[in-house]
Amino acid sequence: MAVYTDINEIDLKAFLQQYDAGELLSYKGIAEGVENSNFLLHTSKAPLILTLYEKRVEKNDLPFFLGLMHHLADRGLSCPLPLPRKDGALLGELSGRPAALISFLEGMWLRKPEAKHCREVGKALAAMHVAGEGFELKRPNALSLEGWKTLWAKSKDRADEVETGLETEIGDELAFLAKHWPTDLPAGVIHADLFPDNVFFLGDELSGLIDFYFACNDFLVYDLSIGLNAWCFEKDGAYNITKGMAMIEGYQSVRPLSTAEIEALPILSRGSALRFFLTRLYDWLTTPAGALVVKKDPLEYLKKLRFHQKVASSAEYGLKP
Amino acid sequence: MAVYTDINEIDLKAFLQQYDAGELLSYKGIAEGVENSNFLLHTSKAPLILTLYEKRVEKNDLPFFLGLMHHLADRGLSCPLPLPRKDGALLGELSGRPAALISFLEGMWLRKPEAKHCREVGKALAAMHVAGEGFELKRPNALSLEGWKTLWAKSKDRADEVETGLETEIGDELAFLAKHWPTDLPAGVIHADLFPDNVFFLGDELSGLIDFYFACNDFLVYDLSIGLNAWCFEKDGAYNITKGMAMIEGYQSVRPLSTAEIEALPILSRGSALRFFLTRLYDWLTTPAGALVVKKDPLEYLKKLRFHQKVASSAEYGLKP
Repeated sequence: MAVYTDINEIDLKAFLQQYDAGELLSYKGIAEGVENSNFLLHTSKAPLILTLYEKRVEKNDLPFFLGLMHHLADRGLSCPLPLPRKDGALLGELSGRPAALISFLEGMWLRKPEAKHCREVGKALAAMHVAGEGFELKRPNALSLEGWKTLWAKSKDRADEVETGLETEIGDELAFLAKHWPTDLPAGVIHADLFPDNVFFLGDELSGLIDFYFACNDFLVYDLSIGLNAWCFEKDGAYNITKGMAMIEGYQSVRPLSTAEIEALPILSRGSALRFFLTRLYDWLTTPAGALVVKKDPLEYLKKLRFHQKVASSAEYGLKP
Repeated sequence: MAVYTDINEIDLKAFLQQYDAGELLSYKGIAEGVENSNFLLHTSKAPLILTLYEKRVEKNDLPFFLGLMHHLADRGLSCPLPLPRKDGALLGELSGRPAALISFLEGMWLRKPEAKHCREVGKALAAMHVAGEGFELKRPNALSLEGWKTLWAKSKDRADEVETGLETEIGDELAFLAKHWPTDLPAGVIHADLFPDNVFFLGDELSGLIDFYFACNDFLVYDLSIGLNAWCFEKDGAYNITKGMAMIEGYQSVRPLSTAEIEALPILSRGSALRFFLTRLYDWLTTPAGALVVKKDPLEYLKKLRFHQKVASSAEYGLKP
C-alpha cells in the first residue's frame, strides 16, 4: 500500500494546468508501488497515473527513469508514457514532492502465471532490451556486486538470526561471484525488477510493463536471469522448467542469445537470486514490526540461490541446445 | 487507507460473471473508506467501485445500505447505484467477504469548502431526506442516546486522561440530553455521516453523496445538525455563521423546516457534537499506537459541544426568522 503524501484538489488542479491533460474529474490514491505515492486520475481526456516520488527514490535518477519510459514507449514498447508539461519537462512538483503524470495502462498482473504467460514475458523483456538501444542516459546498477557487498556488510552480523550458518554461506557465495562474475557480455538498459506485479495482461495477452524505477545499465541476459527467478519457481520452491523454457524461447524469438550469454546464465541467476535475498534480508532485519510494508521472506531467495548453485549448464533452465 | 483484503483476477473475473458489468480491464485497490476494502474497476462498459465489507460492518445491515442507495438513486439523487447481479441480488461474495459492485461517481471532495458549497450540501441533504420517503427497510440509529450511554460507559473512567474534569462534564451533558431530547419530530432516513469527504464536487457543482454506511432512521433535522458540525466550523474552532446560514437556506429551499424542528436544532446539535466526541474518544483511548488508522482528536468535538451549549436559539446558527 502506498499513499504516503496526501494531495488536495486545489494544488492538483494548479499542477494539472501545467499539462494538456484535460479537465480533472476524480483522483484516488491507489495501493500500488512501494516506494512512491500513486493516484489514479480520471480526466475529460484519458485516465492517468500521478506519481509523487518519495524520499527513497533518488531525485537525480528521475530523468533517467522518465526519459527511459518515454524512449521505450516511443519505440513501440507498451509501457507507461510520461506526459510532458506544456514547457516540455517530464517532471513537475506537487505537495513538495517531485511528481510526474504518466499514461494509465489497462491490464492486471497475474497472481498465478502459466507457461504461456512466461513466454510473453520473455518476448516483452527482449523487446524492451532492443527498444532500449540508443537511450543516451546511463545509470549503473547499484544492486550488482559492489552494492551486494555494501548490503551484506550491514546485515551479516545478524544473518544467523534468520538461519544458522548463513554468515559463512553467503560470505562464500559473494567471494565466488566476485571471482567469477562475467565482464564481457552484451549490455544495455535492463528493467531489473520484472516481477509478476510489474507485468499487465488483458486475458492472455501482455498489455504492458510497468515500474521502471530499478532500471539501469547492465548485462541484458542478467535481466533474463531475474525473470527466471521471479516467474519460474513454484510456491514450494521447485524450479518449473516448462515455464523457464517458455520464457527463454520467448526471449530468443525476439533477441537470440549468444553462446557467451547462454554459458553465463547459471552464474547470473546465482547473482540475481542473491540480489533479492540480500535486499529482503536487509528489510527483514531493519523493518520495524507493525510497519505498513509487508516483509518478504528472504529464505525464498536462499532456496533459489541453492538451486542455481547446483545447475551445471543452462540446459537445466530449459534452454534447448 | 483501506485495502484490508487482497483479491486475485481469477476470483474477480468469476465474481463479475454474475453481473452484466462488461469485460474487466483493470482494478486498483483505493485508499477510500475506513471500514471496508475498496477497488476501482475499469471495464469495457463503465468504471465501477467494488466494495468488500470487512468485519466492522454488520452483515445484516447490508440490505438496508444497498437497498437505500438503490432507492435514492432511483429517485434521482446523485449517489452510488449498486449494480444488481443477473439474479437480481445486490450483494455477492468475493474472497470470503460480502461484496457489492456500485457505480463510480466522478468528483472530488473539498478540503476547503466555502459557504456556496455548504448551500449545495444543504440542498442535497434535504433532497436525500425527500427521496428517502417510502423506503421500506428500517435501521434504528445505533449512535443516538442509548448508544452514547454504552460508548460513554466504556470510556468515562479514562476520560480525564484526555482533559481533567471531562468525566463530570460529559456525564452531566448526557443526563441533560436524556432529559430534554425531543420525541416528536419529522423522522425518516438520514445519512448520519455527511462530512466533506462524503460529498463530491465537480467545480462548484455537487456531483454526489457517498458512503451510506451509517445511514439509519432518525429525526431528519438531526442530520442537518450533523452537517452544521461537520461543515460550518473553522479550523480554529469558531462557528462560521455564513456557512451555517448557507447550509440551512439550501436545506430549506428543498424541504422547509417546521417550527418544532427549528426550536430543536440547538439540542440536536449538542447531541450530534457529543456523538462524534464519544466515538472519537473511544477510538482515541482504544486504538493502538502505530495502527493504520489516523486517530481524530476528540477535543475538536468537545469545543463544538461547548459552543452549542451556549446557543440560545437557532438564529445563532444563521436561521432567519
